[in-house]
Amino acid sequence: MSATVLDNIGQLVTNSDGIGTGPVGTIENASVVYENGVIVEVGPAGLIGDERIDAEARCVLPGFVDSHTHLVFAGDRADEFTSRMAGRPYDGGGIRVTTAATRAASTDELVAATAARIEEAGRAGITTIEIKSGYGLNVVDEARVLEVASGFTPETTFMGAHLVPEEFVGRTDDYVDLVCGDMLSAAAPHARWIDAFCENGAFDADQSRAVLEAGRSAGLGLRLHGNQLGHGPGVMLAVELGCASVDHCTYMTDSDIEALAASDTVATYLPATDFSTRQPYPDARRAIDAGVSVAIATNCNPGSSYTTSMSLCVALAVRDMLMTIEEAVRAATVGGAKALGRNDVGRIEPGCRADMIVLDAPSYHHLVYRPGVPLVARTLTSAMS
Amino acid sequence: MSATVLDNIGQLVTNSDGIGTGPVGTIENASVVYENGVIVEVGPAGLIGDERIDAEARCVLPGFVDSHTHLVFAGDRADEFTSRMAGRPYDGGGIRVTTAATRAASTDELVAATAARIEEAGRAGITTIEIKSGYGLNVVDEARVLEVASGFTPETTFMGAHLVPEEFVGRTDDYVDLVCGDMLSAAAPHARWIDAFCENGAFDADQSRAVLEAGRSAGLGLRLHGNQLGHGPGVMLAVELGCASVDHCTYMTDSDIEALAASDTVATYLPATDFSTRQPYPDARRAIDAGVSVAIATNCNPGSSYTTSMSLCVALAVRDMLMTIEEAVRAATVGGAKALGRNDVGRIEPGCRADMIVLDAPSYHHLVYRPGVPLVARTLTSAMS
Repeated sequence: MSATVLDNIGQLVTNSDGIGTGPVGTIENASVVYENGVIVEVGPAGLIGDERIDAEARCVLPGFVDSHTHLVFAGDRADEFTSRMAGRPYDGGGIRVTTAATRAASTDELVAATAARIEEAGRAGITTIEIKSGYGLNVVDEARVLEVASGFTPETTFMGAHLVPEEFVGRTDDYVDLVCGDMLSAAAPHARWIDAFCENGAFDADQSRAVLEAGRSAGLGLRLHGNQLGHGPGVMLAVELGCASVDHCTYMTDSDIEALAASDTVATYLPATDFSTRQPYPDARRAIDAGVSVAIATNCNPGSSYTTSMSLCVALAVRDMLMTIEEAVRAATVGGAKALGRNDVGRIEPGCRADMIVLDAPSYHHLVYRPGVPLVARTLTSAMS
Repeated sequence: MSATVLDNIGQLVTNSDGIGTGPVGTIENASVVYENGVIVEVGPAGLIGDERIDAEARCVLPGFVDSHTHLVFAGDRADEFTSRMAGRPYDGGGIRVTTAATRAASTDELVAATAARIEEAGRAGITTIEIKSGYGLNVVDEARVLEVASGFTPETTFMGAHLVPEEFVGRTDDYVDLVCGDMLSAAAPHARWIDAFCENGAFDADQSRAVLEAGRSAGLGLRLHGNQLGHGPGVMLAVELGCASVDHCTYMTDSDIEALAASDTVATYLPATDFSTRQPYPDARRAIDAGVSVAIATNCNPGSSYTTSMSLCVALAVRDMLMTIEEAVRAATVGGAKALGRNDVGRIEPGCRADMIVLDAPSYHHLVYRPGVPLVARTLTSAMS
């Protein structure tokens, strides 16, 4: 087995408690040695490997960990987006449009579209990615979407409870029974997680609880969408069930924040969604100051957030959610890792995966200082993890 | 001379009054023939040329016209940016930091740094670019910066009146005399435009008027920075003097808007600056509805807006300034052209320069629908114009 050294790193962001200094564990003039996709040594510039990659004195960070996407879908919703920008409010109802397109697409078409998006995400510096289903919304298509997703990442999430499909409108409880029954049975072999959209117009607390508990019985880990479009029971339910993460969290009461802070559940923010739906940005400062663990994810999907740009998410989190640059960088890397229950990604230290990005910039501050500029010059990863 | 055809264009945005339909003059399934850098024919797919470039059914737009940058400088101001994101307000004082670094840099260093930024701007789809001086702030260095800039673009702007330099603090009128005298004489041979920063803490209306009138006497066109950090006399002065453009326009009274609407002066918005200084976004909707002509530019500079991403500017203009997608696309192309007094760029029609960008997307809506994604797949230009 041959070792590779990423050398001449101007500034290395490790996110490690034991290596480097400051809130993101930086080392100036560093190098990193890895072997078979795993980091074996982190130290000053000049460490030795069989192969050498020159970082040209630029900044190197852990690859982004994107813990929330809906990447397998067909069609787009540019029309809905355009009318939203002209003033029509977002209510999530467009999910049914993507469901129709996804059901109609062949598996080869879904694989090809997903592959192109995974490639785009890789260029944006994403090296670990979660993918949810939720555009099948029947037994066959949920399983099919998850089978496609599992060809790209181990972090697959069954989300039959994304929205009640057309054919079950007015019969939400019947649909929940299907999700918890045959659909779960077909989906579980291809999924690591289960998720539900706990929001007015989607699923209430009892329905969401039923779905997540069924998932737990089938051996899946739990996550939840909540508190996106208004106050609601999502955050409290996620804490009650011990979800790894509750996602969106735009509207939180003091009680929500207290409960989250006392739990192991991560609050995952999706700032590009608030951007693309023209919703208010969540007050991350308030949650972080109260002790809540946070992550940032892209929520890449064709309705509310059609972007793979984690860099933009980081910039928005700082500009509009009042996070520090260091908090935002951590949230997009090690924060996402915690939201996925992963210890092997999000940090650069021995034993972690050799998932790293080289920025065309001297420091991580430039991710926010240079908004919109595609700064990720190189993404190093053995495979999307 | 050989003709090239850009063929198989899925959606062509012409911005032409006579070609195509709708507010940006679109044609589906189009091709464009150009010769010696000038467009000679626009029509349906399948026009004939000696060489053929396949747009692969994607969207093609006029190259972006970036009418406001400060691209020639040395150093960066990531530290100032970081402390601003932590709550320190922006007052423009950091211009002096860049001035010190720029004066200390060799001409070769300035050329190399500018070339890298021009290349980045080209990848972002910018095919016409204005560059201001304003980090020399003495006779020798203002002329030197403009000489460097004129190696990259004909649209160079003398902006000795950017800020009063350290050595003239407390003696603004003496500095204005220098700007209008020896500095203008040294700068004018390398400049097409003159500009001043009319704002509290920089130059007042009389001082700005003196600078612009001196510039006019030296044969330069007029532009002005105004109304960025608060209400002020900038807009009215720009209209009074017949400036081609007044830039920033964040704070405007009803009278400012009325005066602009009745004039030929363009209001140039710089949304990435409002993003990076955490200032409020201007209400472009109000100005456009009153009949004001608008442009969008990046204001690329190391202090208040270190980006070349016109796509992000367009997205911000829609999301946060309430422009329609079509208005924002026009503002970033033909709007910028008007702000520079140019008829040969910003549109795709016979006689215009063959400056075009191919988006990795089926329609121009994706510039806003896919925020942060580097969608410009290819930039076609004979040279930065």
